[in-house]
Amino acid sequence: MENDDLLADVRGLLAEREESGIVGLADRLGPSEWADLVPRLDPTEVAVLLEWLPEAEIAEVLEELDPANAAAILRTLSRNEAADLLETMDPDDATDVVEELPDAEAEQILGEMEPAEAAEIRELLAYPPDSAGGLMTPAFVAVSPDLRADQAITALRQVAEEAEMVNYVYVIDDAEHLLGVLSLHNLVLTRPDTPVRDLMAPEVIRIRADADQETAARLLTDHNLLALPVVDPEDHLLGIITQDDVADVLEEEATEDIERLGGSQPLDTPYRLAGVPLLVRRRLGWLLFLFVAGFLTSSVLNSYEADLKTVAALTAFIPLIIGTGGNVGSQTVTTLVRAMAVGEIQLRDIGWVVAKELAVGLTMGLVMALIAFGRARYSEGSEVGLVVAATIIVVTLWSATVAAVLPLVLRRLRVDPAVVSAPLITTLVDATGLLIYLTIARLVIEDI
Amino acid sequence: MENDDLLADVRGLLAEREESGIVGLADRLGPSEWADLVPRLDPTEVAVLLEWLPEAEIAEVLEELDPANAAAILRTLSRNEAADLLETMDPDDATDVVEELPDAEAEQILGEMEPAEAAEIRELLAYPPDSAGGLMTPAFVAVSPDLRADQAITALRQVAEEAEMVNYVYVIDDAEHLLGVLSLHNLVLTRPDTPVRDLMAPEVIRIRADADQETAARLLTDHNLLALPVVDPEDHLLGIITQDDVADVLEEEATEDIERLGGSQPLDTPYRLAGVPLLVRRRLGWLLFLFVAGFLTSSVLNSYEADLKTVAALTAFIPLIIGTGGNVGSQTVTTLVRAMAVGEIQLRDIGWVVAKELAVGLTMGLVMALIAFGRARYSEGSEVGLVVAATIIVVTLWSATVAAVLPLVLRRLRVDPAVVSAPLITTLVDATGLLIYLTIARLVIEDI
Repeated sequence: MENDDLLADVRGLLAEREESGIVGLADRLGPSEWADLVPRLDPTEVAVLLEWLPEAEIAEVLEELDPANAAAILRTLSRNEAADLLETMDPDDATDVVEELPDAEAEQILGEMEPAEAAEIRELLAYPPDSAGGLMTPAFVAVSPDLRADQAITALRQVAEEAEMVNYVYVIDDAEHLLGVLSLHNLVLTRPDTPVRDLMAPEVIRIRADADQETAARLLTDHNLLALPVVDPEDHLLGIITQDDVADVLEEEATEDIERLGGSQPLDTPYRLAGVPLLVRRRLGWLLFLFVAGFLTSSVLNSYEADLKTVAALTAFIPLIIGTGGNVGSQTVTTLVRAMAVGEIQLRDIGWVVAKELAVGLTMGLVMALIAFGRARYSEGSEVGLVVAATIIVVTLWSATVAAVLPLVLRRLRVDPAVVSAPLITTLVDATGLLIYLTIARLVIEDI
Repeated sequence: MENDDLLADVRGLLAEREESGIVGLADRLGPSEWADLVPRLDPTEVAVLLEWLPEAEIAEVLEELDPANAAAILRTLSRNEAADLLETMDPDDATDVVEELPDAEAEQILGEMEPAEAAEIRELLAYPPDSAGGLMTPAFVAVSPDLRADQAITALRQVAEEAEMVNYVYVIDDAEHLLGVLSLHNLVLTRPDTPVRDLMAPEVIRIRADADQETAARLLTDHNLLALPVVDPEDHLLGIITQDDVADVLEEEATEDIERLGGSQPLDTPYRLAGVPLLVRRRLGWLLFLFVAGFLTSSVLNSYEADLKTVAALTAFIPLIIGTGGNVGSQTVTTLVRAMAVGEIQLRDIGWVVAKELAVGLTMGLVMALIAFGRARYSEGSEVGLVVAATIIVVTLWSATVAAVLPLVLRRLRVDPAVVSAPLITTLVDATGLLIYLTIARLVIEDI
């Protein structure tokens, strides 16, 4: 909320074109605060800002922005200015931004850059953005195993400026194979003449460049590493993934899971930047599928039309019954899909998971059945009350079972369990729940 | 999946009580791999493991386990053994485990510990587990501003063993006020006689111990810090929060949001450890609320009973219409609640957010209305077809609006927007959707 005041201040200064005020403000704000503000400014305001901020500061802000946002800003600049900014940014962040530019524009801007820096970005562009290679930066520090500790420190002094992280020093041979790793404090806190070879840990946790970015993020987190080396199939050291990228990856993956659970395909772009056509494309597929599946409910009701006419009171409880089935399914599927995403349960756990969900469903079903019986009996008599109460119990158990089994089975079929959305379970339970309801009605009520 | 083979191996070795095999395996596995395996072993298997693994390794495994899991294991040991293990663990992780123990047991185990280590844990226990204080560790390194760089390095050598992270060195005065920070590589790569005072950055990003853990996690991430100092209101340095805690916090918060969006209260414990009574308590409240709210649908249908008898065909489309409204609402609310959680949209954005969602809803509503018209006209004639098609459009727009406005307004009222679950929107749209449907029917169909 306090950011809103800040935003108002910045807008005021920009509107009045108060250059000294803005530059003064820039001294107080960090890149992440700018990154918070910039997407909320109008394009004309951003233009004024770019004019006044020093280039190094703009580069830092662009690193913090969502790449799609940063690319939009770059496109408002001349090719030359854009190229200068990309040179100033960390190569991994610059690559993410270039990826968001139209190919032709990207080529033109790369053409304006220093050949060495452009080549670095071109190399990184070769890796898919959601792979370990797409996440890595080439700005690591590496030394030969034949140096002594003090020589290694001297070597470090020369490259420390360029490196994104100097807390781990990698050890590579002449052909750039990864041999080991040592931490800067090992190097500092040891006797100066100790050879690097004796100091390094030879068992380095590493990841292949073509591995999934989520695997890389979990490896870093699980092993409490500050950085993870990325290698090619021949074990050549290509780059490192640093801790600051992990939070972004985990947030991105959680966002995708949440969107899928809600019944959309993941947007893969910030909501703010997603246009109406993109939102429609991501949502309409599932919605139409569920809509057409929903016709099944009409068919069920049509075939029981005579019963519903005879006992009209039954109709009144249709939305309550299918709604409750959907709610139970939604609670169950979200909890389980998340537990699977964080690696807590797997297919082999299906036995106890289903047993636990059935026990929970039975308890909740009994409570609701009691209430429903009271309500339905009061307005429609005991027979309908009994039907509604019995249906609530059966539908709750059925919905819990479907919601527990489906994601686990899909994982087995190597489908991401997060495609089992709450709306999918709800729709499945709608038609089957009606069948259960009307079958129980036929059994209990004598007239039909 | 490969972990399943490993699990089978470990179980085999444990079953045959092959001590040498297990100890050999322990040399190859890291703490996080054990942490992955241990929750999936039976209690008797865990007991055998605890007998054989060296104490230091058990402590590392316990640090990686979920605290509730670790506490369950500690309770199988003697008080003395448990106390020894807690002493070996990092104090912040040990505190999390103690928090999960019943108070009386916790007291007894703390009583068996070295007084200094027990005192450290008691101090940390004073902070709520989801506050910055609850996340911090006192194992930081700090020096006086009056030292020279080489003296500071000598001082570091003595404490590096105990510290959880030595990449940042904090500068404090005699009363332990936080004055500045410097990174280990500044210290190493400078001239040995530079005073610490000249080397330190005096503008340290810090957080108060009573701040929310999510705020701390985002501060660390946004500023790309390896550690964040935690201070009391008088700016005394109390501890640090390290990067390895951030991923856990973000994962925990995403899990809570997902569970809330699905219509449950957050479990706050791993699904594996959540018993049936806990699951029922977390789900039944919302479920009953929604169930009772669902009675509204019965009342709506009762009051239109005559209409439904006259045009029985209308009944057949009730589940389809309310289901579709629910699905649209679920897609919208999950996307928006997530965008709010990651700070992308706020109350001030309500205008364009609603406009965008209405545009998306209208597009999708038109497509579905077309299909619905075809289907309903075929089986029930043009009048019913028209009613169903018009209702689909209105319900879609209505559902999108409710799902877009409600979370933003709740945030304004300082209620966590994630309480607006997909089931809540679905239930709201059920009753109102029926009213819309039956009102449109009265307008269009001449008989009623």
